[in-house]
Amino acid sequence: MTGTDGGVGGDGLTDLFGLLAYAELVAFFNLSADAALAPTLEDKAALGGMAVAEFGHFRALHGELTRMGAVPEQAMQPFVAPLNAFHARTAPADWLEGLVKAYVGDGIAADFYRAVAEVLEPDARALVKEVLADTGHADFVTARVRAATEADPTVAGRLALWARRLVGEALAQAHLVAAERPPLAHLVVGAAGASGGQGDIGRMFADLIDAHDRRMAALGL
Amino acid sequence: MTGTDGGVGGDGLTDLFGLLAYAELVAFFNLSADAALAPTLEDKAALGGMAVAEFGHFRALHGELTRMGAVPEQAMQPFVAPLNAFHARTAPADWLEGLVKAYVGDGIAADFYRAVAEVLEPDARALVKEVLADTGHADFVTARVRAATEADPTVAGRLALWARRLVGEALAQAHLVAAERPPLAHLVVGAAGASGGQGDIGRMFADLIDAHDRRMAALGL
Repeated sequence: MTGTDGGVGGDGLTDLFGLLAYAELVAFFNLSADAALAPTLEDKAALGGMAVAEFGHFRALHGELTRMGAVPEQAMQPFVAPLNAFHARTAPADWLEGLVKAYVGDGIAADFYRAVAEVLEPDARALVKEVLADTGHADFVTARVRAATEADPTVAGRLALWARRLVGEALAQAHLVAAERPPLAHLVVGAAGASGGQGDIGRMFADLIDAHDRRMAALGL
Repeated sequence: MTGTDGGVGGDGLTDLFGLLAYAELVAFFNLSADAALAPTLEDKAALGGMAVAEFGHFRALHGELTRMGAVPEQAMQPFVAPLNAFHARTAPADWLEGLVKAYVGDGIAADFYRAVAEVLEPDARALVKEVLADTGHADFVTARVRAATEADPTVAGRLALWARRLVGEALAQAHLVAAERPPLAHLVVGAAGASGGQGDIGRMFADLIDAHDRRMAALGL
């Protein structure tokens, strides 16, 4: 499968879907674990439902990889170590940190998918937009974080620091991945209309962080 | 909602569905956690899919409780402590113990559902049979346990002891629940055609354990 949009090769797309598939699978595991720790049965059920939605995204990407002639597990493999490293270095200390982590990750992932979708073929674009579909997570998190910071204003400072650390760790891993996977980097910066290279990657990430900062402000952090 | 089968009151049914709903929710959490620990991406995906199937069962029971006019979280509440106690006392030490626990639990739950379904109204019976639907778990576990015991025969003895402990802990909690929830106990022993009481409960459990022993033998344990 080759992109119609000049230089977007199959390798880049296999990498992209492999990355997204593993990211969704891990999001499912993390959200399930958050759900198990939720303080009420209502929250357990609500977060469990969001976890299941992430698994649906994983399944869609897994199916598309198979359809493209790739072996999904092989396509995911290069991203297992960097994503695991990110998650190992950002294990939430409590339920609120878990919520903020899921919210930060969801928001950046959605912006990233949206940007990348622009350079994909129609079929691949439709899949990425499906995976982008709202899981209802943002509203859930916003309500609970606001309630927690209203009850104890010192929580806001701690969560804001936490969100900053998450973004730093994510950027570190993302730069390593971009350096190791040129076809993926090329595909991704194509989304930003640039020619490629670490500078373009950096500019694309900078745009994602601007959007992230706006979401944090909306959350009161 | 009142049963048509003489004395099967709404309280018993609300209890039954509350118990099953919470059991399925916890099964979802446990299977997701097992999936996260699975040694390969293929196994992670396969177990994740089974976890999602359990969540679907939870959703169906949750929806039925709402339809019956119950508050699902209230209906589940009496069973949170005993089920949590069971799981806290039977935390698997490794991936194989997790698989055997899920297999033992699934098998006993399926036999229990099948027995109880007989005394329910057609609507409730259809739901219980839907929840009973095979998640593909048994084949998955059987293949992996057999491979592990062939590679290291001493594993079989350890897993057999583990399965025995699981059943003991489950029976202890089940007897406590039966003692505290007479309408539920009455509904459940109605399934076995008995009049009620701890002796009938004990006989019903004994039948479940006979079936469990046959499954363990089939697993080579």
